[in-house]
Amino acid sequence: MASKPLNVGIVGYGFMGRTHANGFRKVSNFFDLEYRPVLRAACGRDEAKLKAYAEKWGWETTETDWRALVKRKDIDVVDICTPNDSHAEIAIAAAREGKMVLCEKPLSMDGAEGEKMVAEIEKAGVANMVWYNYRRAPAVTLAKQIIDSGKLGKIFHYRAKFLQDWTISADLPQGGAGLWRLDAKAAGSGVTGDLLAHCIDTALWLNGSISTVTAMTETFVKQRTHTATGKVEEVGIDDACAFLARFSNGSLATFESTRYARGHKALYTFEINGENASIFWDLHDLHRLQFFDYADESRTRGWKSIHVTDGDHPYMGNWWVPGLQIGYEHTFVHQVADFLKGLETKTPAGPTFRDALETQYVCDAVLSSASTGSWTKVKQLA
Amino acid sequence: MASKPLNVGIVGYGFMGRTHANGFRKVSNFFDLEYRPVLRAACGRDEAKLKAYAEKWGWETTETDWRALVKRKDIDVVDICTPNDSHAEIAIAAAREGKMVLCEKPLSMDGAEGEKMVAEIEKAGVANMVWYNYRRAPAVTLAKQIIDSGKLGKIFHYRAKFLQDWTISADLPQGGAGLWRLDAKAAGSGVTGDLLAHCIDTALWLNGSISTVTAMTETFVKQRTHTATGKVEEVGIDDACAFLARFSNGSLATFESTRYARGHKALYTFEINGENASIFWDLHDLHRLQFFDYADESRTRGWKSIHVTDGDHPYMGNWWVPGLQIGYEHTFVHQVADFLKGLETKTPAGPTFRDALETQYVCDAVLSSASTGSWTKVKQLA
Amino acid sequence: MASKPLNVGIVGYGFMGRTHANGFRKVSNFFDLEYRPVLRAACGRDEAKLKAYAEKWGWETTETDWRALVKRKDIDVVDICTPNDSHAEIAIAAAREGKMVLCEKPLSMDGAEGEKMVAEIEKAGVANMVWYNYRRAPAVTLAKQIIDSGKLGKIFHYRAKFLQDWTISADLPQGGAGLWRLDAKAAGSGVTGDLLAHCIDTALWLNGSISTVTAMTETFVKQRTHTATGKVEEVGIDDACAFLARFSNGSLATFESTRYARGHKALYTFEINGENASIFWDLHDLHRLQFFDYADESRTRGWKSIHVTDGDHPYMGNWWVPGLQIGYEHTFVHQVADFLKGLETKTPAGPTFRDALETQYVCDAVLSSASTGSWTKVKQLA
Amino acid sequence: MASKPLNVGIVGYGFMGRTHANGFRKVSNFFDLEYRPVLRAACGRDEAKLKAYAEKWGWETTETDWRALVKRKDIDVVDICTPNDSHAEIAIAAAREGKMVLCEKPLSMDGAEGEKMVAEIEKAGVANMVWYNYRRAPAVTLAKQIIDSGKLGKIFHYRAKFLQDWTISADLPQGGAGLWRLDAKAAGSGVTGDLLAHCIDTALWLNGSISTVTAMTETFVKQRTHTATGKVEEVGIDDACAFLARFSNGSLATFESTRYARGHKALYTFEINGENASIFWDLHDLHRLQFFDYADESRTRGWKSIHVTDGDHPYMGNWWVPGLQIGYEHTFVHQVADFLKGLETKTPAGPTFRDALETQYVCDAVLSSASTGSWTKVKQLA
Repeated sequence: MASKPLNVGIVGYGFMGRTHANGFRKVSNFFDLEYRPVLRAACGRDEAKLKAYAEKWGWETTETDWRALVKRKDIDVVDICTPNDSHAEIAIAAAREGKMVLCEKPLSMDGAEGEKMVAEIEKAGVANMVWYNYRRAPAVTLAKQIIDSGKLGKIFHYRAKFLQDWTISADLPQGGAGLWRLDAKAAGSGVTGDLLAHCIDTALWLNGSISTVTAMTETFVKQRTHTATGKVEEVGIDDACAFLARFSNGSLATFESTRYARGHKALYTFEINGENASIFWDLHDLHRLQFFDYADESRTRGWKSIHVTDGDHPYMGNWWVPGLQIGYEHTFVHQVADFLKGLETKTPAGPTFRDALETQYVCDAVLSSASTGSWTKVKQLA
Repeated sequence: MASKPLNVGIVGYGFMGRTHANGFRKVSNFFDLEYRPVLRAACGRDEAKLKAYAEKWGWETTETDWRALVKRKDIDVVDICTPNDSHAEIAIAAAREGKMVLCEKPLSMDGAEGEKMVAEIEKAGVANMVWYNYRRAPAVTLAKQIIDSGKLGKIFHYRAKFLQDWTISADLPQGGAGLWRLDAKAAGSGVTGDLLAHCIDTALWLNGSISTVTAMTETFVKQRTHTATGKVEEVGIDDACAFLARFSNGSLATFESTRYARGHKALYTFEINGENASIFWDLHDLHRLQFFDYADESRTRGWKSIHVTDGDHPYMGNWWVPGLQIGYEHTFVHQVADFLKGLETKTPAGPTFRDALETQYVCDAVLSSASTGSWTKVKQLA
Repeated sequence: MASKPLNVGIVGYGFMGRTHANGFRKVSNFFDLEYRPVLRAACGRDEAKLKAYAEKWGWETTETDWRALVKRKDIDVVDICTPNDSHAEIAIAAAREGKMVLCEKPLSMDGAEGEKMVAEIEKAGVANMVWYNYRRAPAVTLAKQIIDSGKLGKIFHYRAKFLQDWTISADLPQGGAGLWRLDAKAAGSGVTGDLLAHCIDTALWLNGSISTVTAMTETFVKQRTHTATGKVEEVGIDDACAFLARFSNGSLATFESTRYARGHKALYTFEINGENASIFWDLHDLHRLQFFDYADESRTRGWKSIHVTDGDHPYMGNWWVPGLQIGYEHTFVHQVADFLKGLETKTPAGPTFRDALETQYVCDAVLSSASTGSWTKVKQLA
Repeated sequence: MASKPLNVGIVGYGFMGRTHANGFRKVSNFFDLEYRPVLRAACGRDEAKLKAYAEKWGWETTETDWRALVKRKDIDVVDICTPNDSHAEIAIAAAREGKMVLCEKPLSMDGAEGEKMVAEIEKAGVANMVWYNYRRAPAVTLAKQIIDSGKLGKIFHYRAKFLQDWTISADLPQGGAGLWRLDAKAAGSGVTGDLLAHCIDTALWLNGSISTVTAMTETFVKQRTHTATGKVEEVGIDDACAFLARFSNGSLATFESTRYARGHKALYTFEINGENASIFWDLHDLHRLQFFDYADESRTRGWKSIHVTDGDHPYMGNWWVPGLQIGYEHTFVHQVADFLKGLETKTPAGPTFRDALETQYVCDAVLSSASTGSWTKVKQLA
């Protein structure tokens, strides 16, 4: 086998631990690349769960302390899938050990912390990437290609939302396995960092920087039992967040996210309206892209539902045949493929830590605006 | 008012009596035409119902005997909205009196009867038309325009269905007000003449003649109480009918109709697949046309959902503004408008009685094939 | 004919002049009501256009001065279809003459003017109504019925948008026939009063009062030739407007409108998310309502696409048969029917002038907030 | 690792070689099973291609002669992914060696050959299965569960189609890599065995046996260059096939397949209409199921679009979280999982060779009817 092994050590074995492991395992079956990920070590605190996870996915070894993992000589890449409050510490330690670092989104608890991470990772000069996986849904990448081709002309509007409904019940606790996203101490924020961060990352990628925002947040269920203490405690996260924004290119935007939109499981949608064309995408049918092109003949003009499964669509030549859709997990496989290709070609795949910091700046401005009630300028990357 | 009055006498005041009256009343508000229909006389056997109908719609006079109506000097056009078994008698009598004749579909009980009607009407030389209204849904007319433009290339496939679910209950009687469609004596056939006739008319218009068919029919509920006799009687109509066909142009077709498709109220759909493009239409969203054009750029190719509400779409310049849809009843208004325009320009609007006879021939072949189990040639127009 | 004639005098013969005339003409064909509108007089300044309009629609007489019209003894109802800047003057004069008054939306140029109109109309004690027609799309009325039934439970979110794309071209002039909506002097505002007013009216009806808003507006094309002067002038209207809102019931909302959303002709949509159920509606398929009910069995739960064409759906028993859709113009017929029924039952049909004033207050707060950049309280009805 | 290894030897490395390999590789990451497939040996004639395939997927060894493979002691399961004309020979040889046998669909070239395979496999008493993978799309399995629950009541209609458009060009050769499906000698038939076989398998599973059919076939492009000879030769396959059918339960059916339906890449759809409920599925959105339940409240009744991604949906508890869709390849993973579970529980997973023989009988009747033009009885399983 000609490909070069790249030893991965993962920290965390939850939902993201599974999506990443699947990405590392599958990529070589579908993509021709110089590098081949090796599932070398999995790390987590609960040894029983860790062992089960490692066995299920074929991680060759395990560690219960990430500090040990990042020092291991046989590890090339440290992949961080832990709750948000430990991203910085692990990433910085790994970078200092000269490891490449992959980090789950959001990058950090806030912009200030993210700046430290970027400083360290860039000082270390190691390859790095943040898992904003939706960029690699083939339909979203196709949207990027269409936009880059100039077909849209001047952009007037951008709108994105990410709607879920899984926390409506007041009986749901905060904290604990699978529920740390409801615990402000672990998550930093609620839907803003968890869901809107995805919307913002895509928006920055497709439409450039955001200059100013005004936002509102709400916590519908004010108190929940905390799993750690067993007591009813104040809920510190935002259950819902909406904001208006102005992009640097002059376009206007609306963003919204909630976990209280009954009927929507994970409805991430975005739409972009340009002078000459518009694009719409929807995570619930992630294999389709809606495209309206004003250049089409007048009488037969309409929104096209593109079934993004052809060989000339992004990534799709590596999968099956036209008409046969792929799913959610494939976005991670693509991200691994692009990361490896980036190593091969010395062209880093985005979003890097630095790219992801920009999203943190927007989140900071959003949360600040929700608190002050004022339009708030977004800090820009240096 | 510059327009010339055209006195209409209608026979029948049921569902179709309402759609036609609405067509006559509205056409002059929306179309600039030389002729203006006058709702001169309504005719029906039940005097109380007739009076109520006439008053509601503004018919100036009433008649309880159609024989009297067709002889009236003040009537220019006789419009027939009665059950199928009386079309021929009324149409022939009206033609012999020199009246223009409009006839609800299907033209006749069968091809033989239809031939007599055509012979008489053509001998009389009077303007005539059959109400296959769906040709005038703007999206269907747009389909015709696209096909006529040659965009589809060689045609490979045609498929049509008309699905309803209103007769599933075995408690529904046959015959009586609103239910004569379940009575073979009044209707001639079941879904074949009622629903498939629409599908066939559109198909002949869009894709040319049908040469041969093989069919099956079924009567799911074998006995129903007859309203006329109060007794349980055998059901003589076909509840469902499906057939395979070959068109003269070499394309293959499937046709299906039923009143037992739970969940579909009036789902008439057709699709036509050509070498270069395909078209799909659906009565449940009649204001849209789906169009796939292989000539579109590869990466952004997809089915276009055309919202047929623009000023350059058929008929739509006469209605509102882009984006605002019209509905079912407008197909009749359009048919009136085209009939009047045909008088004005001496270019008869279709489908004429002769055109509609072709549909009867297909229905005859379908019913015959369902009975014999053999592929059956369709009689062609002389 | 048993029904009582109600003489209507209309002011204005533009787009709305047509929709209203059609409503008055058709209502008696489809609804059984005590009152029957008579198209007694049409009024407008351009005599040639007025005559053509009156003839086309059957208005019995004409007037070129609305001051004369409102004084005519033979007029029971004055219906105002003029640009926004003349609503108040005409409505007040008509009310002082004791006429019932119907007024196109938005009620007024702003809340202050609206208050005067409400004061006068209520002092006169005449029947009154504002043409927020979308309340009467059967699917929207069905949404209201579902909400009133309590099926949704506590409401968390409301989102509405009204997207168009007809003013993208910078060559379009402001002012003149059909284009007064681009002229701030005639229209008062741009999309806020024209389109968002519809969204707000529906929202207030479905979800109660709005307490506070933060907004942004934009004018993408800053200068356009003014039809009146022939000169290039500053554009005074908002081309786009988006705002965040909090309803009094604690729910959060996003509203957006623009005439620069390429691909959308008249895409008015709203969605409401409750604890137990959610509803979505879309003007481009106005005959459908999307409904998600969490009470449905878990495994087969999903958004239902309700084809609102059954006899037990609002208004639909008066039209055709299940599966056959109606369109845009029917909302006006329904509004006439409800107005007449309101007279008959002495139960005024909404929205009254007072109801419509609430929408003005929201518009005022939105435009003020867009100017100040602050969250702004909405003035509430006394 | 507690699970028992099960050594797989695969024959064929084409499109299906990849889908199966992926199934074997992934199943243990997502399903908790006693057996664990080991990719022990890959077999194919072209050694270079074979090596590349084996390396890409991690097959531990290779063989260039299937006769050697089926004799290997270290092989538990022989999986056949070759063109149709070699299924029987390999399957019978493997069975005689006591191997479990998995066979790509269709089972055989015709019913007679299939009978021999069933006889041998049952005589050998080895586990066996045919890869009609679409049964295991979660939405299709959900359809089966709904039907089995009795929700549909008496069935009236079944309709299925499988539309593709990839052979429209007359320049496409027959035979050769990826194109053996156009070569009658290798494939047996065209769309009938390739595509309709899928539709028939699902139909038999969901709706029971088919008693009689009438069919038509067409070969639109009569001659194509044969890759093997380099000469233009007659095309022996059916490009399109449609048939009418009656099921033993009294329901009527239409089936259609073609590779000439411009705009459809792999549009396999089926619909089933029962007295009380209906179901529709579509491969282009395979993660959704459309369901209409007449038992729902009248006013809010409609087709439900079920996003089949919840934990209580078939197979979905093994994947991600609600709202995140899986794709085509997962149907093969599920089939492997069910095969392994079947070994574990001694309850064979379907479709077995015997089950798949029933599909061959229907295909035989269809092709015979297309040739004779008569309604043809379908041979039933003994």
